Amino acid sequence: MTLTVLFAAGEESFASYRAPLESALAEEGLDTSLFTDAPPEIVDYIIFAPSSSLQDFRPYKRCKAVLNLWAGVERIVHNTTLTQPLARMVDPGLTAGMVEYVCGHVLRYHLGMDAHINAAPGTWEQRDPPLASERKVAILGLGELGSAAAKALAGLGFVVIGWSAREKQLDGVICQAGPEGLELVLRQAEILVTLLPHTPQTESILDAKSLALLPSGAKIINPGRGALIDDAALLAAIESGQVSQATLDVFRIEPLPADHPFWTRPEITITPHIAATTRPVSASRCIAQNIARVEQGLPLLHRVDPARGY
Amino acid sequence: MTLTVLFAAGEESFASYRAPLESALAEEGLDTSLFTDAPPEIVDYIIFAPSSSLQDFRPYKRCKAVLNLWAGVERIVHNTTLTQPLARMVDPGLTAGMVEYVCGHVLRYHLGMDAHINAAPGTWEQRDPPLASERKVAILGLGELGSAAAKALAGLGFVVIGWSAREKQLDGVICQAGPEGLELVLRQAEILVTLLPHTPQTESILDAKSLALLPSGAKIINPGRGALIDDAALLAAIESGQVSQATLDVFRIEPLPADHPFWTRPEITITPHIAATTRPVSASRCIAQNIARVEQGLPLLHRVDPARGY
Repeated sequence: MTLTVLFAAGEESFASYRAPLESALAEEGLDTSLFTDAPPEIVDYIIFAPSSSLQDFRPYKRCKAVLNLWAGVERIVHNTTLTQPLARMVDPGLTAGMVEYVCGHVLRYHLGMDAHINAAPGTWEQRDPPLASERKVAILGLGELGSAAAKALAGLGFVVIGWSAREKQLDGVICQAGPEGLELVLRQAEILVTLLPHTPQTESILDAKSLALLPSGAKIINPGRGALIDDAALLAAIESGQVSQATLDVFRIEPLPADHPFWTRPEITITPHIAATTRPVSASRCIAQNIARVEQGLPLLHRVDPARGY
Repeated sequence: MTLTVLFAAGEESFASYRAPLESALAEEGLDTSLFTDAPPEIVDYIIFAPSSSLQDFRPYKRCKAVLNLWAGVERIVHNTTLTQPLARMVDPGLTAGMVEYVCGHVLRYHLGMDAHINAAPGTWEQRDPPLASERKVAILGLGELGSAAAKALAGLGFVVIGWSAREKQLDGVICQAGPEGLELVLRQAEILVTLLPHTPQTESILDAKSLALLPSGAKIINPGRGALIDDAALLAAIESGQVSQATLDVFRIEPLPADHPFWTRPEITITPHIAATTRPVSASRCIAQNIARVEQGLPLLHRVDPARGY
């Protein structure tokens, strides 16, 4: 029987996803029809993005799973009409991109590159920089992306300290958990990377209190979620010098409004939510594989737990 | 018998090297006296730096080896008074620092960081950046530093193409050699890293002809030796856009003179010979171990071949 797959992730995305999805579904031996519009009662699977106009999942009674095209699910997980199983996107291309972004900006801060990039002509000041083995980098969040970034940074020789809500173990990474662990980690974070999901527990996890725990002059890289940071508290910490630089890829409102004070601080680097983009080819493969699993009676991979929120 | 070790690498360096050298020599069980000035006829080993006032090695008839404090030996290897064996510095701290510098600047160019660091307020242009697995990075020189950098870049997922004068094999690196290999490598080098020693063969290896072989808009990182580059040819390639950006750490004259045209090009980033600094603790350990080897009748490590020039 032909499966009906509804692509409810925007017409614009469909242009780049149609061909890779169709070939990935065929590769899995699935007989499917892919639509951007279909009567709810015939839909077997929904491919979803937060920008979708689809907000009421109740009519999709036959739908076996909703497959999110993005890693973040905070804009769908609390939709009370959603009773179907929901899967997060775990795209190897997205993970690779995130690791590159994190390693690049950690090395940038570690090496003090900005001073060289923008040096006045004639500047020649040699300083013995510390080695990565003398530099403590902390990562909040040790999920798919956080642990991949932590391992890559450890591979570059950094002293990597990771924190997650629940206890984890990662080779080459000093792992901490829980509220006490968080304080320990923040106190050592010369460079802090935030890769937590956005949940009620992580909302504004970087507020005035936690920013004050960082070593003076710490640097922050947030490619996770905008709501992890209390914007006003970060601005105050930048103004006081407690935080010397920050690179932010995600914001409470995107695009970041032109009048947001982040734009006015030279210590803050804004990147336009590019740290990790889902790549059509690899993401389509993930979706097709997950649909094939369900059809074979296997459990959905990367299934979201609504109670946890991710 | 007490060995006399002459530290002929400058009074200034002696301040940072004295303690680590004395403890490293003692750790090797060597009975030594360390001087910055001693009658030539009693000197057993010379620790040397190019800045040294010692230029005539003839009176040091008893000297069993000259241990260079730097990786580069081009300012001593052609000294005709030098008949004693000469060892290059291969400091694990120096290698680690070089790997960090190369990975950092390659990622900076790969991710297009400068545009974000210096973006005008309100800039929000999302582009799907290629992954490291789609980016070709070429490394000229696969010695101690070049191969370490090549391996680290391959570990980050880049397509790494290496070139060396003599054939080499490195896991995860596409290796080429000889003049034909060089052309092949240059033609693919989206990002080019030069880590060759300075010899008559490598002098101005990046000249107008070889720069023209690069893909249009290529980026260059030179933490190797200043003389690898024909300065005027690089400036012309920058002006024409053939080379879009360059990061240079080493120069024909250092500090780079304030009136050098490199300073006037925003596409060129100047770092003040900091890519890899010899670290007193690890370098002292290398020197002490090498002296101990000679005392035990073993061959000197990292011995320079004057015919090859490194």
